[in-house]
Amino acid sequence: MALAINESRLWTSLETLGQVGAYRDERTGLWGVNRLALTDADAAGRRLVMGWFADAGLAVRVDKIGNVYGRRKGRRDDAPVMAGSHIDSVPTAGRFDGCLGVLGALEVVRTLNDAGVQTSRPLEIAFFTDEEGCRFGTDMLGSAVAVGRLPLERAWALKDTHGLTVAQELQRIGFAGSHDVRLAPPHAYLECHIEQGPILRAAGVDLGVVTGVQAISWQEVTLSGKSAHAGTTPMHLRKDAGLAAARLNLRLHEMAVGGAYGELRATMGAIDPVPGMVNIVPGRVRCTVDLRHPDDAAMARAESDVQAFLKALEAEHGISVSTRQTAKTPRIHFAPAVQAVLARQMKDAGLSHQSIVSGAGHDAQELSSVCPTAMIFVPGEYDGISHNLREYSTPEQCRNGVNILLKALLELAET
Amino acid sequence: MALAINESRLWTSLETLGQVGAYRDERTGLWGVNRLALTDADAAGRRLVMGWFADAGLAVRVDKIGNVYGRRKGRRDDAPVMAGSHIDSVPTAGRFDGCLGVLGALEVVRTLNDAGVQTSRPLEIAFFTDEEGCRFGTDMLGSAVAVGRLPLERAWALKDTHGLTVAQELQRIGFAGSHDVRLAPPHAYLECHIEQGPILRAAGVDLGVVTGVQAISWQEVTLSGKSAHAGTTPMHLRKDAGLAAARLNLRLHEMAVGGAYGELRATMGAIDPVPGMVNIVPGRVRCTVDLRHPDDAAMARAESDVQAFLKALEAEHGISVSTRQTAKTPRIHFAPAVQAVLARQMKDAGLSHQSIVSGAGHDAQELSSVCPTAMIFVPGEYDGISHNLREYSTPEQCRNGVNILLKALLELAET
Repeated sequence: MALAINESRLWTSLETLGQVGAYRDERTGLWGVNRLALTDADAAGRRLVMGWFADAGLAVRVDKIGNVYGRRKGRRDDAPVMAGSHIDSVPTAGRFDGCLGVLGALEVVRTLNDAGVQTSRPLEIAFFTDEEGCRFGTDMLGSAVAVGRLPLERAWALKDTHGLTVAQELQRIGFAGSHDVRLAPPHAYLECHIEQGPILRAAGVDLGVVTGVQAISWQEVTLSGKSAHAGTTPMHLRKDAGLAAARLNLRLHEMAVGGAYGELRATMGAIDPVPGMVNIVPGRVRCTVDLRHPDDAAMARAESDVQAFLKALEAEHGISVSTRQTAKTPRIHFAPAVQAVLARQMKDAGLSHQSIVSGAGHDAQELSSVCPTAMIFVPGEYDGISHNLREYSTPEQCRNGVNILLKALLELAET
Repeated sequence: MALAINESRLWTSLETLGQVGAYRDERTGLWGVNRLALTDADAAGRRLVMGWFADAGLAVRVDKIGNVYGRRKGRRDDAPVMAGSHIDSVPTAGRFDGCLGVLGALEVVRTLNDAGVQTSRPLEIAFFTDEEGCRFGTDMLGSAVAVGRLPLERAWALKDTHGLTVAQELQRIGFAGSHDVRLAPPHAYLECHIEQGPILRAAGVDLGVVTGVQAISWQEVTLSGKSAHAGTTPMHLRKDAGLAAARLNLRLHEMAVGGAYGELRATMGAIDPVPGMVNIVPGRVRCTVDLRHPDDAAMARAESDVQAFLKALEAEHGISVSTRQTAKTPRIHFAPAVQAVLARQMKDAGLSHQSIVSGAGHDAQELSSVCPTAMIFVPGEYDGISHNLREYSTPEQCRNGVNILLKALLELAET
């Protein structure tokens, strides 16, 4: 079959959605996207894409956590083959993260519509609520609720830094749907996503077959010392929470580059000293720790050693430390059979490819707990930089990934 | 002469003003004060104290930078002897910082009124605008303008983080006065202030005679790296501005405790990573550096070594660094003759005392450029902690300081 997606239509969709929540960075002059989950910008993006779903003839439904599904009838009323991702973004995003998976699946549907092709199984395309976790502190929120890992009530009760809950914000933007959140297991789930890393581009291969997702651990760490006057308080009498946080940051870096923890990645993304004034020794600091590792045992060892380091900080700086786990997922292994379908379709299409572990969390890891799942990775330019305004994949890279999504969906829909 | 101030009236004044802008810290249960300069709370405090000035029979005037002066006539129309301080506060303040100097001077006037004493020279008591510098980034703002170190237009144009200017906020709170800012040099200036440090209390002496103020250098440092995905970006490809800021923080600490810079104090009070999200490597960090040293040459060496360290950070982390000096004052030496008056009055009153260098900046250092100046330091409990809700000096400690202020003002007003 010579079916192929329309590259320029896909690109136009990405550009159009990329204008919702767009902003210009004053310093660099670059345009970026800010569609933080359940904000007005997210709502505008949701309405745009839902309209496109309806225009493509899909039966659209919204569930109680705001996940949006569009179903295309099959010849048989069996469990559908599903493809999707998310359209919420981090505050400093590009146009591709998540959107490629959603608009790629939409492009597949449009291509099938144009060709008049009906599949045996239904196709269902989806975008899930708050994959990024930037606003309410828990990532893969909508998909985690859909597969039953996270209770709906717990998700509804999560608050942003202003004290607004997920439930309130879903109501406010008009996406507190009526459909049951618990997803009937699809026949299979596919997600086409940008790699968000440098590996495929550096290797010069066209696409990646994702074997799974590395383990993720997020903690919020609060260091409580004593605020004091910066000019008058002798150094030996200080309990500087900011200094302790700086030592934690350096320790995380040493752990990740030192080799003793294998392929550990460690990041302190947020640091918030109180009161945060030039002339006051910080009395309290809230900061975050993001750990990633492709091996569960090594991750457990890293987590335990961070705890031990925090204990040592308490003693050395005369501070107290509390931690709160805000996200925690184990190493995920995707279905070998679905990976094999992707690899074969890439080979048949003449696209070079390699297997790759995902460094980032994705909705696919939630879906993998209820159905055979795999992901296609599309390379990115500029070392695959993502969560950054420079995030960029070429039209050809995007087309290659979505063409494989098309072919793999067609194959899986006949099984 | 057996004149003595009224301890309980002074204490009541401190407590009453301490209720303006008061708040309760949820974590500790302590009450604190937040009267950041030119806020509504500051305005309420200003109106309260101005009312007390008027009730004490003082002729009150407000200048164009919002400094408030109250004059008590002398037998001769000579240059007045002045006493004062400030009533604005840091956001996490106690009741004493600045207020003791203003309400102490007011208590002196009330005491003279009760006793029917008229001095030869006029007495003038003052509170100066935005001594703390927390909101508009420049400390001793009002007194610096009054003595001509800072042009009025430059002070007016300073902005807070919301972009509001000093001029706008003066207008808004009704303290854009009509009087010329340039102060006719007083005959002498005295300021009674809490030590804000542990030295006097640890030594068990009643009061301190302040010999001057150590050199102060504030810088805002912006570290620009590259924001990136925390899960997918290999450690060696990162340009982590937060990590670089952490290294600067540790370096400052090493410099201050290592001994190579003598009595250096160094603090990173503010750290603000952008975008500040758990799963994003910070692309940019704005942080502050507060350096203090009792010796100008050693301060210059410390400043230059911080610059050299920032240069090294640029190379090692692939980031770029810019710095902006937000405050800079040299070592100030107070007038020996005024220090001698204070020391003699303390001795005559049976109060033990010692000489001490101020770790904090004070309005007195600005006044010292136009007239003979010195300060009285009152010890504080809890290691003299200040800029903190625990800041506390006892009624007796406050009384001792203000009694010396009374006697020294009387002596200087006859010369």
